[in-house]
Amino acid sequence: MEPWRTGLVDSKDGQIRLRGYDVTSLMTRASFTDTIFLLHRGELPRPAERALLDAILIGVADHGSGAPSCATARLAASGNRQSVSAAVAAGILAVGDDHGGAGMGCMEMIAAGVQRAKTESISLDEAARLVATEARAGGKRLAGFGHRVHKTDPRTEILFNLARSGGVAGDGIAFIAAMEQAIATIVKPLPINIDGALAAVLHDMGFPPVFGRLVFIIGRVAGLTAEVAEELSREKPMRIRIPVEYDGVAPRALD
Amino acid sequence: MEPWRTGLVDSKDGQIRLRGYDVTSLMTRASFTDTIFLLHRGELPRPAERALLDAILIGVADHGSGAPSCATARLAASGNRQSVSAAVAAGILAVGDDHGGAGMGCMEMIAAGVQRAKTESISLDEAARLVATEARAGGKRLAGFGHRVHKTDPRTEILFNLARSGGVAGDGIAFIAAMEQAIATIVKPLPINIDGALAAVLHDMGFPPVFGRLVFIIGRVAGLTAEVAEELSREKPMRIRIPVEYDGVAPRALD
Amino acid sequence: MEPWRTGLVDSKDGQIRLRGYDVTSLMTRASFTDTIFLLHRGELPRPAERALLDAILIGVADHGSGAPSCATARLAASGNRQSVSAAVAAGILAVGDDHGGAGMGCMEMIAAGVQRAKTESISLDEAARLVATEARAGGKRLAGFGHRVHKTDPRTEILFNLARSGGVAGDGIAFIAAMEQAIATIVKPLPINIDGALAAVLHDMGFPPVFGRLVFIIGRVAGLTAEVAEELSREKPMRIRIPVEYDGVAPRALD
Amino acid sequence: MEPWRTGLVDSKDGQIRLRGYDVTSLMTRASFTDTIFLLHRGELPRPAERALLDAILIGVADHGSGAPSCATARLAASGNRQSVSAAVAAGILAVGDDHGGAGMGCMEMIAAGVQRAKTESISLDEAARLVATEARAGGKRLAGFGHRVHKTDPRTEILFNLARSGGVAGDGIAFIAAMEQAIATIVKPLPINIDGALAAVLHDMGFPPVFGRLVFIIGRVAGLTAEVAEELSREKPMRIRIPVEYDGVAPRALD
Repeated sequence: MEPWRTGLVDSKDGQIRLRGYDVTSLMTRASFTDTIFLLHRGELPRPAERALLDAILIGVADHGSGAPSCATARLAASGNRQSVSAAVAAGILAVGDDHGGAGMGCMEMIAAGVQRAKTESISLDEAARLVATEARAGGKRLAGFGHRVHKTDPRTEILFNLARSGGVAGDGIAFIAAMEQAIATIVKPLPINIDGALAAVLHDMGFPPVFGRLVFIIGRVAGLTAEVAEELSREKPMRIRIPVEYDGVAPRALD
Repeated sequence: MEPWRTGLVDSKDGQIRLRGYDVTSLMTRASFTDTIFLLHRGELPRPAERALLDAILIGVADHGSGAPSCATARLAASGNRQSVSAAVAAGILAVGDDHGGAGMGCMEMIAAGVQRAKTESISLDEAARLVATEARAGGKRLAGFGHRVHKTDPRTEILFNLARSGGVAGDGIAFIAAMEQAIATIVKPLPINIDGALAAVLHDMGFPPVFGRLVFIIGRVAGLTAEVAEELSREKPMRIRIPVEYDGVAPRALD
Repeated sequence: MEPWRTGLVDSKDGQIRLRGYDVTSLMTRASFTDTIFLLHRGELPRPAERALLDAILIGVADHGSGAPSCATARLAASGNRQSVSAAVAAGILAVGDDHGGAGMGCMEMIAAGVQRAKTESISLDEAARLVATEARAGGKRLAGFGHRVHKTDPRTEILFNLARSGGVAGDGIAFIAAMEQAIATIVKPLPINIDGALAAVLHDMGFPPVFGRLVFIIGRVAGLTAEVAEELSREKPMRIRIPVEYDGVAPRALD
Repeated sequence: MEPWRTGLVDSKDGQIRLRGYDVTSLMTRASFTDTIFLLHRGELPRPAERALLDAILIGVADHGSGAPSCATARLAASGNRQSVSAAVAAGILAVGDDHGGAGMGCMEMIAAGVQRAKTESISLDEAARLVATEARAGGKRLAGFGHRVHKTDPRTEILFNLARSGGVAGDGIAFIAAMEQAIATIVKPLPINIDGALAAVLHDMGFPPVFGRLVFIIGRVAGLTAEVAEELSREKPMRIRIPVEYDGVAPRALD
């Protein structure tokens, strides 16, 4: 077998270098968030970038023990207390388009919209109106907008303010703000939620769409590990049994 | 890298042989259950062995959608509808000592008990009394006994009858029956449940203890895949949200 | 929380009924393959259907220890020997569009093609020519055709013969045969492989496309459990270390 | 079903409070590492504690693409490119006693050793000698010592210096240093490795043993996500096929 190629980690002779930096240097002079940025981008972040990545990771760390990812991890821990790896992994497996995954779809929409404005030589506002109109016509739900409770999501404001004051804000934030306006006009007012906000900010920081999902996983693992630790220390094995109502065929005999 | 060694599958040149048999021969002349036995044991089963393995796999296939494994799979599918692999895997991750895993522990107990009878030149009844007495003294719960509802588990009777009529019954069934007697005398009457029954039968069929857990996984995947398919076809994304009550510290401000 | 609804399993009072049948009856009078069919379809299979499902499950059980699903399971077992659930689950997680998942895509293509023939009142042959032509024009790879080694896949012939002699063969097999012809004319001769064959057969048996992936998972778990058992019994922990070549940035110092 | 209790997250009315702190406050005034500490401990860390947790997370983030966790994630991504959740989860499933899990075992040993010194009114040095002697007699491998390459692990020195200068060093570091001495005398010189070092430091910070495994998972997810992103962006599907050598029974025919 050919050796695998990688540009991430050089670990020959027990020395470990992450993207060229000796891990021992990073341990004393960088934060974990810096290292996440470094591994994914190849360079250490500027202070504004670090602040944004910290804010995003904190913003997705845990939204409640009953959300699918956390509940899945707790259920797995309830039946299988021997392996915390299994429980945390189970929690991550609940992350998809419908839970924690909107950031990726939204980043793809932003990237396509910004590109379209350039290709068609139209403004971001005009591109946003086209995207919103087409989505409405196609009955397609747009990721990154709307909230069960809030009219404006306070986490969005925090991310956008950090991006603006740090000189990071660019086409991504401009385009999603234009989308919010277009949606309000064409459909109904729907605030940019945390998924939409982190998508816009990560786009402006230069991350590819897949990072919109990966960053959710990285942040959520902070919550999942705490949920699993609480389940194991505070609850009995098998304490969780979901109530079920059978509505299938009546009892019958085999011929 | 050295090639991995395996005695399971020969797949050179696109020919696939499982334990020496061409897969195309097996496809027309064997059952899936035969193939499971073959892969794990190296030989095809006798009819009585096939009947027992079928009965065990059916017996563990699905005990209800609310059990940890099934509920975990459904929760994962609820958040992540893009990957049925992820949902089924999440369900398997809930399988451990406390859920679906008792068979392995019970097989280890049976193997140790049967061995002890030989080593100490005592009867299986005597060995069972010693094991039960020591477990009681040590406050150790014995896997494979007791049922939330039944006084005798009907699935146990089925497995034991099949084993006896098929000439498979041996020291495993004899020892666990002796354990049931000993526990009834020393602690209280506790029926041999499905985990205990399959452990005794698999011991008598010559399987190692780890197969007590693996057989549960193989059988349960039949149920997990059906649970996931039902969740996806019948329910909306994110329909599951577990009710949670917060009882931690009161709201507080950062300094 | 509202109880979950299910039509699969009734497990009130410790009685377990799968799709209406008492599990104890199934244990003595059905095979595991029957039970898989029952859980997914709501009825027990006819003999020809059982034979086909057995053949499909055997056909996908294991294609070699080095394939992604098996290798992933072995690697996980190599680092984490405490949880066979974790290792088997890891193996399942490698199943996707590119490995073991072609059956689902192919079933979707077949369902769409058969539907199109009806809607447009054209023959299956004509529909197949249109699908193949459009795929070629769009540069789209069609799932279910081609094999690294074989000119005709012997497993395909077995499944089709079983389907024909059992009276199961229908539009699915007819359409995929028409596709094979169309592809040979328009692109180049590519045999129907096991994925294409099982897709056609499962379509004719009335299964939905998602079962094309689920059946691979069910069958492959037979192989994954055997691979994990062999890894644990025959190899040392951490014996696997993949050779890696670093080709990223040169060592550098932090400022 | 009774609501689940939790002391971690209060998410009523769309407000999210982690351990009492509003998530929006944390987003602007805390780091991700602070939030990990907060979720697991209930309080924000002091600066020395934050520096230590950052250093530990960085120290375990990635040791090379060929290690079981990273290789497992890449293999899963190779077959299943549709779900990055599945690939990252697969990587976590390789974390166990033999890979990334030594921290937990070592924390248990430290906790037991420190407790024993108190209970038996002996010095930590004396307790360490007893533990090392008993381990040698029992043929038990002690987690946290030894390195394939280094005579002294530079990461250990960094963690211990940070702990000492930050006033965190306590019985944990004292005991493991005593263990290193005892092992050198009784067995042979074996340096405290990263697992042993983080175990001692986390003990002195007041974490329970299970966090020794969870912290590895949290840190390693930074690496796993980067490995998966590189695999998807740089490599073709199914590019990985592990070389395998079959050494089982010869081809044979079914009767």
